[in-house]
Amino acid sequence: MNQVINRTERTSLKRLPKRGEYNREVIYSILDEALVCHVGFAVEGKTFVVPTGYAREGDNLLIHGSSASRMLKTLSGGIEVCVTVTLLDGLVLARSAFHHSMNYRSVMIFGKAFAVSEENEKMKALRAFSEHIVKGRWQEVRSPTSKELKGTLVLALPLQEASAKIRNGSPVDDETDYELNVWAGEIPLQLVAGAPIDDPRLTSDINQPDYARNYTRVKRSGNE
Amino acid sequence: MNQVINRTERTSLKRLPKRGEYNREVIYSILDEALVCHVGFAVEGKTFVVPTGYAREGDNLLIHGSSASRMLKTLSGGIEVCVTVTLLDGLVLARSAFHHSMNYRSVMIFGKAFAVSEENEKMKALRAFSEHIVKGRWQEVRSPTSKELKGTLVLALPLQEASAKIRNGSPVDDETDYELNVWAGEIPLQLVAGAPIDDPRLTSDINQPDYARNYTRVKRSGNE
Repeated sequence: MNQVINRTERTSLKRLPKRGEYNREVIYSILDEALVCHVGFAVEGKTFVVPTGYAREGDNLLIHGSSASRMLKTLSGGIEVCVTVTLLDGLVLARSAFHHSMNYRSVMIFGKAFAVSEENEKMKALRAFSEHIVKGRWQEVRSPTSKELKGTLVLALPLQEASAKIRNGSPVDDETDYELNVWAGEIPLQLVAGAPIDDPRLTSDINQPDYARNYTRVKRSGNE
Repeated sequence: MNQVINRTERTSLKRLPKRGEYNREVIYSILDEALVCHVGFAVEGKTFVVPTGYAREGDNLLIHGSSASRMLKTLSGGIEVCVTVTLLDGLVLARSAFHHSMNYRSVMIFGKAFAVSEENEKMKALRAFSEHIVKGRWQEVRSPTSKELKGTLVLALPLQEASAKIRNGSPVDDETDYELNVWAGEIPLQLVAGAPIDDPRLTSDINQPDYARNYTRVKRSGNE
């Protein structure tokens, strides 16, 4: 699993190369923690960036939606896409305005997506979306029907040309600024779950499951 | 301020039109709460989606970075961009796998960015970035020098062609699924600040300011 994903002209960082990370394990850990990706593509020379949920299954990034979705139909034609996933980890407050920054982990993926059309594969993909959002939920809910499967377009984007970019840690100030009388440091940021909100039509004998009451995305290790 | 931003072919939602919102106040409130945007553009037929900080100043979205930035130099040439900002508000757990969803607020902006080159305007823009991240910080830190201003490229994207898309509230299940014995509802999600982390080189007599200890982005009103 410690392979490096193809480093191409597009994924080679031109500036701040120390922030580039190409380790497959790092890339996958970011993809597995985040919930939303931004899909970029061009139609007739116009660029669109659309936010959507996703899941990773092995070495593919999966996205899905209605079979009537303009975006998905366009992408299934095999056009080039760029999918970016970003986790914002904190604000970096330096002693000068100029050196303020953000801590983040992001992944960029380039390639062409293909439609997943075989019914079993499609079902596996839908399971992957469900498990990505709430592990264990899939086995409790009503499974997709044949009609629902037909109404869903699933696309797979091979994780072949991808890179991660990461910034973490303290601000980096100009040497002469360290003596300034101003606080400097990091304000960490996390996506945190609040108390679950029952569906108004929930019957009173159904309790909130643990995975909803204790929901967390944080899988960070290390520096905190 | 209750104007409607131009509704064009690109910003007209083809599906789920009830999720489309075109009110300038709604669009601006989303832009003012979020911290990161995803900038999409094409170079030689290839699409890129790059995450970056931003600020709103009046009717412009501002982005900035090093004058050597490949992206910013490309964009300052006046090419078409699509900038998308997404706030993830919650997971929507339905009784069927099919009807799971997410609550979110997102904004898409289309247009051409122009470089802000006049020194005073550039300084105002840098102040806007600072105020967008931490209100009040600007007046405490060292201001940008002339050299730093020269080394910074600031781009403004007019907020002329933009739209918001919003989902909120409970799951919507098939009528026959409401009798299933499974919990349904929303898990709210928020970007939450943790305890500030002092810069290791901070001198011991400088305390954490209130805006760092009590940092919050949440400006939601209404349904919670």
